[in-house]
Amino acid sequence: MQRDLRRGVAVLGSTGSIGTTALRVLARQQDRFRVAALTANHNAALLETQVEQFAPAFVGLVHNGVAHGEWRCGPECLVEAAQRPDVDIVLNAVVGAAGLDATLAALAAGKRVALANKETLVMAGSLVTAARDAGGGEIVPVDSEHSAILQCIHGRPDVAVRRVILTASGGPFRDWTPEQLAGATLDDALRHPTWRMGRKITVDSATLANKALEVIEAHFLFGLPYDRIDVVVHPQSVVHSFVEFVDGSVLAQLGVPSMELPVLYALTHPDRVPDSGVPPFNPIAVSPLTFEPMRREQFPAFALGVSAGRRGGAAPAVFNAANEAVVALFLQGRVRFGEIDAAIADALETFGHLTGDTREAVLDADAAARRFVHERFAC
Amino acid sequence: MQRDLRRGVAVLGSTGSIGTTALRVLARQQDRFRVAALTANHNAALLETQVEQFAPAFVGLVHNGVAHGEWRCGPECLVEAAQRPDVDIVLNAVVGAAGLDATLAALAAGKRVALANKETLVMAGSLVTAARDAGGGEIVPVDSEHSAILQCIHGRPDVAVRRVILTASGGPFRDWTPEQLAGATLDDALRHPTWRMGRKITVDSATLANKALEVIEAHFLFGLPYDRIDVVVHPQSVVHSFVEFVDGSVLAQLGVPSMELPVLYALTHPDRVPDSGVPPFNPIAVSPLTFEPMRREQFPAFALGVSAGRRGGAAPAVFNAANEAVVALFLQGRVRFGEIDAAIADALETFGHLTGDTREAVLDADAAARRFVHERFAC
Repeated sequence: MQRDLRRGVAVLGSTGSIGTTALRVLARQQDRFRVAALTANHNAALLETQVEQFAPAFVGLVHNGVAHGEWRCGPECLVEAAQRPDVDIVLNAVVGAAGLDATLAALAAGKRVALANKETLVMAGSLVTAARDAGGGEIVPVDSEHSAILQCIHGRPDVAVRRVILTASGGPFRDWTPEQLAGATLDDALRHPTWRMGRKITVDSATLANKALEVIEAHFLFGLPYDRIDVVVHPQSVVHSFVEFVDGSVLAQLGVPSMELPVLYALTHPDRVPDSGVPPFNPIAVSPLTFEPMRREQFPAFALGVSAGRRGGAAPAVFNAANEAVVALFLQGRVRFGEIDAAIADALETFGHLTGDTREAVLDADAAARRFVHERFAC
Repeated sequence: MQRDLRRGVAVLGSTGSIGTTALRVLARQQDRFRVAALTANHNAALLETQVEQFAPAFVGLVHNGVAHGEWRCGPECLVEAAQRPDVDIVLNAVVGAAGLDATLAALAAGKRVALANKETLVMAGSLVTAARDAGGGEIVPVDSEHSAILQCIHGRPDVAVRRVILTASGGPFRDWTPEQLAGATLDDALRHPTWRMGRKITVDSATLANKALEVIEAHFLFGLPYDRIDVVVHPQSVVHSFVEFVDGSVLAQLGVPSMELPVLYALTHPDRVPDSGVPPFNPIAVSPLTFEPMRREQFPAFALGVSAGRRGGAAPAVFNAANEAVVALFLQGRVRFGEIDAAIADALETFGHLTGDTREAVLDADAAARRFVHERFAC
């Protein structure tokens, strides 16, 4: 019997936007990767279809709506999938704080975490990087901006990097006036100009909270102080980020907006494999590429997030939790767009001083911020 | 006595545009590099100033206009400088075919050649790469486009690269009509929109012969077949080139048009050192970046050069020699702009079939093409 030399992949959050993209990539790359585990939040029907196609050894459903004989049900299935010996790479595409324990478990077990769940690094960056260093695992980003930065750095030493510049599409409200913004609806917020993503991250892109999450993520992923992480608005979303080196040279990674490449690269890094998922690059078709300053005063969530990152402790966890809670309310039509910033600001004002040096402290701060937002802002 | 651990650099062509840029870089980087040798073509006065500043152990003047007790005079000084044991890196910034022997000598001696003299690779690419492989030397490009490609590839294996896309400013005649082009003057041709360079390369940028030379250079430097080397016009000259990898990802290197960085990088590759020669990158200041197709039918020198490259043998040497000869005549006001293409085409028609498998064969083809252009086109 021949041994299967393919690397085993667990896809956590397989029925979401990143998860389904990942399974398209994995279907093309079956010579190199094997789907060892799939977990979904609640979409049992789609999960069942995926299980039929990929025949993973492990299947988990977080919200136990339907009974399936061989499926694990309940939130523990995430950690269980992440720790399996037949899993080499954990693609964590869970949305929000629910992904933390699976990331910690995978890193402690020395596995690669392909991290789409940026909230993990935001709420508990020090704990996650400590788990990585202790367990010998590695974190490879799936966010397009951070994948771009990783590709540009490509193994160069930390001292070679002067600065990173994250690009931001600017979201659907990039050129809206304050008056227009005050009346922004859910439909407006979900109309992202360049990226098709899940609903939560699409709203985060409208408030620019997402870009603050990404700044904090970059801080922990690349070990960069905040004053060496800049952001520029780039409405075409073709340049996925820049890295400026100490000699003044700048590299950028480019491509049409698609998550296929960041997902694939997170699996193959630092190598590259032939793949047909990304169309050939045509610079003429994407011309012109423009860059403009971020209108920080119109999008307070960005500055709130970055200053929470700089503050450290549990502040980033409070920022993330308040944002998750209030965006969930916004998606339910229970708060207005303008209240998102207010909820984040109030939560940080109340809980931003908390320490975050243990998993429990982080989760307590997270829970406190969520409760606070629900009590104060849900109608 | 403490040993000098700095790498010794010979600057061949030190009084030209690249040479003077290199000495500015070397003046800033004196902790890491030592100017071991300087040679100039004929500008003895500037060479003398440079000798006073850098005190090199070896000084050469190709055209022996003035007698200087300790200077070597005559064309042999280039090879002599390139072979010296106290030289680790030969920055070859000689213009044209005159740089060939120095490159071959340096590579045979196992040294790094920082190659600004692209004609070397164009006329004798197979011989030069063979000398590199036999002698254990290395060729690091100083051309901004090839430096960009090298920085993007950064040690990745050849199989990872799908395609390179060289950018071209399009030169001063980018949007001229055929009628305007027919009346183009020397002054028009010397008015480059983005780069300040020597006169010969500035004319080559106006005819786009320079971009053909660069395509051939890329072919030999990176071992890429011609159908994996594309060109796109990028009038701002901020993106110095693109590399597309087999997974569809694209990296680019960017910066304001300046040769300081390519020169520095050719010295430090694959490492990077802090340097103040390049201003911090500001994507907003360079916005918008545009890309457009090359108008190949208006600039026949480009297609002539690339097809000479594809043909191989002595054809690239004939292309290069005919171009050098006719551009020299154009700079002297002895041919019109429109005759440059005709001279190249006629020379290739007559000598393009010659073989180029030895240094002598290449130099014979080179000489034949030059004679031909002088006899047919000089007035």
